[in-house]
Amino acid sequence: MSDETAEHPESETGARVAVRRRRGADSVRRPRESGIQQGHFPAILRRSLKPIEPLSAEQIEAVHRASLTILEEIGIEFMGRAARDLFARAGARVDHATGLVKIPAALIETALKTAPESFRLTPRNPARAIELGHDALAFGLVAGPPNVHDCVGGRRAGNLADYKRLISLAQTFDIIHLLGNQATAPQELPVTSRHLDCYLANVTLTDKVYHCTAIGRERALDGIDMMAISRGLTREELRDDPGVLTIISVNSPRRFDEAMSDGLMAMSEWGQAVVVTPFTLMGAMAPVSLAAALAQQNAEALAGIALSQLTRPGAPVVYGAFTSNVDLRSGAPAFGTAENARATLAGGQLARRYKLPYRASNASASNVVDAQAAYESQMSLWSSVMGGANLVYHGAGWMEGGLTASFEKVILDVEMLQMMATLVQPFDTSDAELGLDAQREVMPGGHFFGAQHTLARYQTAFQRPLLADWRSYPAWLEDGGKNTTERATGIWQQALADFAPPPLDAAVAEALDAFVAKRQEERKNAQD
Amino acid sequence: MSDETAEHPESETGARVAVRRRRGADSVRRPRESGIQQGHFPAILRRSLKPIEPLSAEQIEAVHRASLTILEEIGIEFMGRAARDLFARAGARVDHATGLVKIPAALIETALKTAPESFRLTPRNPARAIELGHDALAFGLVAGPPNVHDCVGGRRAGNLADYKRLISLAQTFDIIHLLGNQATAPQELPVTSRHLDCYLANVTLTDKVYHCTAIGRERALDGIDMMAISRGLTREELRDDPGVLTIISVNSPRRFDEAMSDGLMAMSEWGQAVVVTPFTLMGAMAPVSLAAALAQQNAEALAGIALSQLTRPGAPVVYGAFTSNVDLRSGAPAFGTAENARATLAGGQLARRYKLPYRASNASASNVVDAQAAYESQMSLWSSVMGGANLVYHGAGWMEGGLTASFEKVILDVEMLQMMATLVQPFDTSDAELGLDAQREVMPGGHFFGAQHTLARYQTAFQRPLLADWRSYPAWLEDGGKNTTERATGIWQQALADFAPPPLDAAVAEALDAFVAKRQEERKNAQD
Repeated sequence: MSDETAEHPESETGARVAVRRRRGADSVRRPRESGIQQGHFPAILRRSLKPIEPLSAEQIEAVHRASLTILEEIGIEFMGRAARDLFARAGARVDHATGLVKIPAALIETALKTAPESFRLTPRNPARAIELGHDALAFGLVAGPPNVHDCVGGRRAGNLADYKRLISLAQTFDIIHLLGNQATAPQELPVTSRHLDCYLANVTLTDKVYHCTAIGRERALDGIDMMAISRGLTREELRDDPGVLTIISVNSPRRFDEAMSDGLMAMSEWGQAVVVTPFTLMGAMAPVSLAAALAQQNAEALAGIALSQLTRPGAPVVYGAFTSNVDLRSGAPAFGTAENARATLAGGQLARRYKLPYRASNASASNVVDAQAAYESQMSLWSSVMGGANLVYHGAGWMEGGLTASFEKVILDVEMLQMMATLVQPFDTSDAELGLDAQREVMPGGHFFGAQHTLARYQTAFQRPLLADWRSYPAWLEDGGKNTTERATGIWQQALADFAPPPLDAAVAEALDAFVAKRQEERKNAQD
Repeated sequence: MSDETAEHPESETGARVAVRRRRGADSVRRPRESGIQQGHFPAILRRSLKPIEPLSAEQIEAVHRASLTILEEIGIEFMGRAARDLFARAGARVDHATGLVKIPAALIETALKTAPESFRLTPRNPARAIELGHDALAFGLVAGPPNVHDCVGGRRAGNLADYKRLISLAQTFDIIHLLGNQATAPQELPVTSRHLDCYLANVTLTDKVYHCTAIGRERALDGIDMMAISRGLTREELRDDPGVLTIISVNSPRRFDEAMSDGLMAMSEWGQAVVVTPFTLMGAMAPVSLAAALAQQNAEALAGIALSQLTRPGAPVVYGAFTSNVDLRSGAPAFGTAENARATLAGGQLARRYKLPYRASNASASNVVDAQAAYESQMSLWSSVMGGANLVYHGAGWMEGGLTASFEKVILDVEMLQMMATLVQPFDTSDAELGLDAQREVMPGGHFFGAQHTLARYQTAFQRPLLADWRSYPAWLEDGGKNTTERATGIWQQALADFAPPPLDAAVAEALDAFVAKRQEERKNAQD
């Protein structure tokens, strides 16, 4: 037969053996076993595959040189006085009237010398520590959408109840390593203090690393203080053993607003991680050509990284990339495109040139959790992981180009993240794994279902899917014929039904409540 | 602002400029411009990215040595006498009672010396020639499903009308470079002669390379003869300038049935391409461990490749890989899994070790064109393309683990194939592309919509999607809120409405009709 389908079992025959999933000794213990089976991976995931490198060494240098020209000759606008003063003292040419800062190459080189190649962030549960740098790989929850969506309740404005449900999902799934910026904006709460409600939810409903909103100094310091309280540390102690991070999204092209640079400086001053991410949409906030967008991204990232190192040499900092393209007919932003993937791969080479940790994203423009959402996210994920990203931000739940956090998308992404985690595991070609005994045991045209080699491994072989349905068409149809998105609804519902917050010391909980009450009172009349 | 979403345009503002797609001088001219806009790529696509290499050099040798042990000591069953005789004459140890052939390493080495590293297949339109080898990359239409599905007519048994519509889609989209085995089996036609109806449709409705069904010698030779007629060549002339290929799917583990080896030998004897593809489902037809499955795949592939070279040294041959896993709970086959992707990446290293062209697949187990179909196919595509595959078989339309050819999946896959084709293009970091002029022109916080750099490139920048919808949620909802699968239905309907077959010389058409009539008469009482 030359027709492959002839070999496919139409019905589900074969070894119907119960599979209990491997749980490595180094995996994270959860306080309660959820009814949902998930993959178990090392607490700190590492990529054993070498990254894809699309640029030649000469091409990397060409982009590097162009970005130095932007920094030195064209300049970056810093709207904040504090940042400009710091640059001026370090030898940059500063025009306080226009805000333009022209940064000499030597200043960048000095900053790159002190920026660490790798660092750890430790939350209140030390087993949930993440590493950023080298071949470590961490995935974050969706961050920032003003809206939220699920297939039961539909699309709605972000709110605290949904915020809590989203971060509960992040706590449930081990493959989500950290919380990014607000998973959805709790829009019913005062803008001056909603960050406090979010931080409180973060440290009570989860025990993972979280993001501090660095819009000005105060919001950043509140997040730092609450992480310190949750770990029983002072702010000073946390400085030397960081636990939180922030994303600084540049107002591309070439502008850092004041709140952003003040927030950046507060985080660096207190030793917490800063991820500098130019938002360089080709054709809109960046030139239409990939090389030019990369040069701009690189200049903006290096400017932010330099500011962090001027603030505190050695402060943990990450090279962020978010170069995608727009639809030139409409100006609509696109994500998970081939151009986005190419930029992400190339961005990793630039980050590695500077020996910096690298951040990319799992992004999609789809308005619904469907095939487009999946293939755009896969383009993002493959290029992020194989581009050498240490942090895949928006790892689970990002929909509509970031305007909506989706519950079904969280589940879809968890499935895909688990697949990526399996993909990057090392290969074992020991004699036992090469299995010549199994070949000797099974006759030509036979099968390996009952082979000793199989029986010895069936409990741990293969990543069991969370979401994929591999049943035959008749069996699938008989069971309701649900598509993947419909199945995802059932999974997040079960995960939330099963959810129990991680244990928290009563005294710590009390201290956190007191801190929030005090700070909410203080920020009642805040102007930022 | 540290919230990226703040920068996303909620409404579709920006440069609303008409974009006409680039059409390279070397792209294929279609007889009639379809209403559907598709990407335009070089006629022979090349991967400019280096492949991902998960195995170390030592690990490749370990798999190689294990496969030699299988070949030399454990043996491969060839049910066909002709194949066994050929192996015996070449020095293999043959047991005609059991069919077992034990193949010495020296015989394999000799075969590998004559197998070409790269070759071309030329169909009746020479502009549609494909290259298999080195960094060339070709995508095939879905092949072999007994069923067919679209969202209008539902799931049904394969038939000639649907067959013709599927290959018309393959002709429409330039990114589908060749036709594989029957896109769906025309089950209403006699099994003894339906291959003739399919070949006739192939050479009249398309002008691309197609697959010959190598179930025995006759079906293979019919396909060879019809390609020869369509090109105005004799069978002898076609031998030195091949135009067709076949897939030889091994009855894993370690068995080639008689029809298969006879078909393989007929194709090689007449200089046409043979793709030897073990179907090694881990846990079923192959051991449960990846290393063992790779060793088995390698042994089976090398056995088939050796047979082709014994038949005719220098005959074009391809190393095929189809190693995936089953669900160990049910025995159901799974495709597009992380394990499948790992095997595909590793398989490419083995093919390159032997300097052979490499074949992989775009596969998914999903029963419906949805998120699972997309993410499993993306796992397959990324690992195929970045594994260095020259031929991605089942490139468009494969659903239900190969049991159904889907019209919507064809469209979804064409979208993803075009993205992969964009992904692998070379980077341009020339001064013009680095765009420092654009940086000088645009102020901080401004935009590049109207920059000279943008205006000079807007006609050719970015791969325009066939299927993705990048509009804002309100605009998308206003227009019906169709998901990706629903949009795909409209696209294949339009493509078929627009379809016109490529021109065919009347005398050639007559000769083909006469050949088919004669052969159908001859095969009325065929036993195979």
